[in-house]
Amino acid sequence: MVVSTINGTSPLSHSNGTTIPLSTFSRNSFVNVEKGDPVAFRPYWEKVRDECTVEIKGDEWMSDLGDTNNLCWYMVPQMRDAILRLHNVVGNAVTKDKFLVLGTGSSHRPINVVAAAPYYSEYKDATDILQSRLFQWTGDAALYDKDEPYIEVVTSPNNPDGTLRVPVVNSGVEGKIIYDLAYYWPQYTPITYQLDHDVMVFTFSKCTGHAGSRIGWAFVKDIEVAKKMITFVQLNSIGVSRESQIRAAKMIGVICDGYKNLKSIESDHLFFYYSKRLMKERWEKFKGAIEKSKVFTLTKYPTSYCHFNKDLSEQYPAFAWLKCLEGIKDGESYLEKLKIRTRGGARFGVDAKYVRVSMICTEDEFIELCTRLSNAKRE
Amino acid sequence: MVVSTINGTSPLSHSNGTTIPLSTFSRNSFVNVEKGDPVAFRPYWEKVRDECTVEIKGDEWMSDLGDTNNLCWYMVPQMRDAILRLHNVVGNAVTKDKFLVLGTGSSHRPINVVAAAPYYSEYKDATDILQSRLFQWTGDAALYDKDEPYIEVVTSPNNPDGTLRVPVVNSGVEGKIIYDLAYYWPQYTPITYQLDHDVMVFTFSKCTGHAGSRIGWAFVKDIEVAKKMITFVQLNSIGVSRESQIRAAKMIGVICDGYKNLKSIESDHLFFYYSKRLMKERWEKFKGAIEKSKVFTLTKYPTSYCHFNKDLSEQYPAFAWLKCLEGIKDGESYLEKLKIRTRGGARFGVDAKYVRVSMICTEDEFIELCTRLSNAKRE
Repeated sequence: MVVSTINGTSPLSHSNGTTIPLSTFSRNSFVNVEKGDPVAFRPYWEKVRDECTVEIKGDEWMSDLGDTNNLCWYMVPQMRDAILRLHNVVGNAVTKDKFLVLGTGSSHRPINVVAAAPYYSEYKDATDILQSRLFQWTGDAALYDKDEPYIEVVTSPNNPDGTLRVPVVNSGVEGKIIYDLAYYWPQYTPITYQLDHDVMVFTFSKCTGHAGSRIGWAFVKDIEVAKKMITFVQLNSIGVSRESQIRAAKMIGVICDGYKNLKSIESDHLFFYYSKRLMKERWEKFKGAIEKSKVFTLTKYPTSYCHFNKDLSEQYPAFAWLKCLEGIKDGESYLEKLKIRTRGGARFGVDAKYVRVSMICTEDEFIELCTRLSNAKRE
Repeated sequence: MVVSTINGTSPLSHSNGTTIPLSTFSRNSFVNVEKGDPVAFRPYWEKVRDECTVEIKGDEWMSDLGDTNNLCWYMVPQMRDAILRLHNVVGNAVTKDKFLVLGTGSSHRPINVVAAAPYYSEYKDATDILQSRLFQWTGDAALYDKDEPYIEVVTSPNNPDGTLRVPVVNSGVEGKIIYDLAYYWPQYTPITYQLDHDVMVFTFSKCTGHAGSRIGWAFVKDIEVAKKMITFVQLNSIGVSRESQIRAAKMIGVICDGYKNLKSIESDHLFFYYSKRLMKERWEKFKGAIEKSKVFTLTKYPTSYCHFNKDLSEQYPAFAWLKCLEGIKDGESYLEKLKIRTRGGARFGVDAKYVRVSMICTEDEFIELCTRLSNAKRE
């Protein structure tokens, strides 16, 4: 048995923001899979680091104006073009006849806000902190029965449980529906349809793994809704960082270039091939560990045809949603004893026997996670 | 007389975000000095463009974590160090024993919010759009007399009128005061004191002119207040763009390097010397134009000793605050007829005979502005 005070601490941070994963965790250090920082795809970006380099000179991108001809005035044309190109390559959303609104990843904050449980834990927090007279978090969409206007957030694939979703509110009045499609990318789920909803929200972070850039966008059918979203971003932060836009546009460009004139879609040089292979391998390993542990059960996902990958495929969600077997009432506390930090069901509006586990952590964290889970019984 | 449809349109935008100012405005085109995009300092950054270059590779700054050892977890250490260094060089704020909170330029949004008129027009908009139960814009601080908790925003130097300010609320209960010090930099006003208030807010945009980066920060004495501000930024946008932080840190570093081992503070290589000289020249030219017009009067500013520049100096505010002489009831409409777009007094909670004019526009806009103002009488 090795006891070490140096090894096993959290990964060291480089001054340039990259991380050196330590090869071993000590028995006493935690594996933190509570948050969803999408660091799993870093090795891909390390391989293409030079072609993705952006250089910004002192006098470039100074103004807060992006494109005065666009309704979304703080969006630079390169960013707009990159987003449209990406959806064109992936085929996950209809972009025609819609307004593109750029945000900081939080432009969806809606009157009576509901989402079917389990729902993303930050929705409640974000709505509550603003203590808004316009917006209030009203909780589980399945239980909403007031005859008042509402907004239902439909996250599909869902965070935390990865399931594909449709609206569930059954109310006497018509509500607005926001589709949060943060995880509707080929590495997580088969691209079954080119979605065409009134309000569809995406984030750069979960697509490529660049969480630090804080870039999100929405496709909006109604110009009045689009204008309100733009005003919100405008008053909140007078737009979106120009540096982030330039960089996001570059990264998306590199991804899309890979799919130009290509001979095969099976190559680790292609971002979605690489990232899907990674997710698939992790899920297979993870399922093995869960089976060995005999302590948890996992959500079952259907197999569907993916129009992007041109094959039948399972889902490989960014989070695993574990249900503890009889006898374990609080999954988060149970895993805490195994030195695994997770987010418990209560945060998502469901029973504490559920826990959410990040599948997009570093490789070292993931390996240690699987080891600890498969040894769960013995503790 | 030259009538042209090509010249005189708004400045053309380069694909790299720089602007080519056109040398002439046609008679029919507007000079837009309504907004405060601080593009005046661009020529400085053009001179130092290469030493200010930042390069970000594909795998750098991916995570949304900045510094897990800091309360403000999304702030990268380089950003923190640069901000502290800048205040140390300029001497405008006491940073010791305070918490540094990074934001997107909007982390100040407070219960009953008041500010003495004329007040910054966006305060009302930002508070109203959130329709918050916690915060409501209550208007002119001088008129506030409710015995309820409140927050007074003290902007000094003030936007729109450039005056130096102190709190004015006279209420039975104790309020909180937020100092918005966006313009407390040596190019705009003598640095008379190293301020030491409980909550002091700054923005990168007005200091260097890089409005596109959306970086702001606050020094906060009370850890509980600091925690709440961090939570707000966290839920609003999960932090602040890493790319913007890296770039802002670089720019600030270049400014501060200039003041290291220096022989004279009078050199155009020094940012605050350059920018103050520019503001001074503009104000002198502007005063001449106003005098010639005989239509407006200007706010008078006191002369004070600047500890940074080590001299007695006037103020050279980022905005001019014009009062129309008798007979002109609506300054904004009057100037609209002269093809000058400004922001009228009503937006700032005062009479329509006042208008705000940006003094930090491009050089070409500024020259045209002065020409049109000095010809005002003849129209």
